[in-house]
Amino acid sequence: MKILEDKILKEGTIITEGNILRVDTFLNHQVDVELLEAMAEDAKEYFKNDEINKILTVEASGIAIATVFAQVFQVPLVFAKKNRAQNLEEEKYVSTVKSYTYKNEYDIAVAKKLIDEGDKVLIVDDFLAEGNAVYGLIDIVEQAGAEVVGIDIAVEKGFQNGGQNLRADGYKLYSQSIIEKFEDGQIIFR
Amino acid sequence: MKILEDKILKEGTIITEGNILRVDTFLNHQVDVELLEAMAEDAKEYFKNDEINKILTVEASGIAIATVFAQVFQVPLVFAKKNRAQNLEEEKYVSTVKSYTYKNEYDIAVAKKLIDEGDKVLIVDDFLAEGNAVYGLIDIVEQAGAEVVGIDIAVEKGFQNGGQNLRADGYKLYSQSIIEKFEDGQIIFR
Repeated sequence: MKILEDKILKEGTIITEGNILRVDTFLNHQVDVELLEAMAEDAKEYFKNDEINKILTVEASGIAIATVFAQVFQVPLVFAKKNRAQNLEEEKYVSTVKSYTYKNEYDIAVAKKLIDEGDKVLIVDDFLAEGNAVYGLIDIVEQAGAEVVGIDIAVEKGFQNGGQNLRADGYKLYSQSIIEKFEDGQIIFR
Repeated sequence: MKILEDKILKEGTIITEGNILRVDTFLNHQVDVELLEAMAEDAKEYFKNDEINKILTVEASGIAIATVFAQVFQVPLVFAKKNRAQNLEEEKYVSTVKSYTYKNEYDIAVAKKLIDEGDKVLIVDDFLAEGNAVYGLIDIVEQAGAEVVGIDIAVEKGFQNGGQNLRADGYKLYSQSIIEKFEDGQIIFR
């Protein structure tokens, strides 16, 4: 998606240790809501025949994007919580996610009452690297007997395995930008 | 704000151990974006003379609300991050917050480049109890030489001290609903 790629080229910065792209002026620290609206409209066109009735993301940095998607798709947003001890009496679907960035594991959870059997869910997130968070969300949707009809990602790191694995598994993945590689401090899109 | 109070009465549930109000079907787990739009329009009217040029919240559950506020106010959103070891090379404003809910302390941080001296900031959050998170955000805004022109809260727990303290300190606080108390399993608004 050209608007997003242009914004990444203009404002994104590469942190070479760890192949990290920083997009904190418009996507995951400061947020440019007009850009998110353009992304949501673009995604709505892409998924127009998929009868999506729920947007699902995971806290924290996916929430802003997913909120605007929920507005444009005119469906509720659910964000999975990183599991904590509180409110244990609530019935939840839980999945364990390995974090590539922080080298640890954490649980994500969604209250059972918030995903119904037969829901047609669009998973939304800011970054796709190894895909661990997305696979955790897929696990939760499938535990609920609902269907992942699509996955929308703002920035796919094409040099990691998440996108390849999700496509091989048959998911309808729409990455609104795909970084092929970083080369001499430049961002090369696929 | 009547629409919000009605929604709380209809869908909110009280967890009596700890005076916790659960609003997870529309505010901080599943999100009703139409309700957020109505709240943002209401707040825009309330703060119409305050020349707000930035919305500030803290991850995670304030982000959805603050995103819609940023759209309606037509200004950027910044969300403070809960501090982690990564990206240490970035210059940040940091403040330490005591969590009433989780009985611990954590740091929140905003990249220095994202708040400018003279910014007129509206702080937005879902709940106000003791006010610790809001005071952490105020600290960050003041470190930056910017101004907190207002604070907007979806649900103030009037039986805790945050609202009283912020008003006594002279902040322009707009709580879109204020719970006076829970009585016999009922929610009583101020």
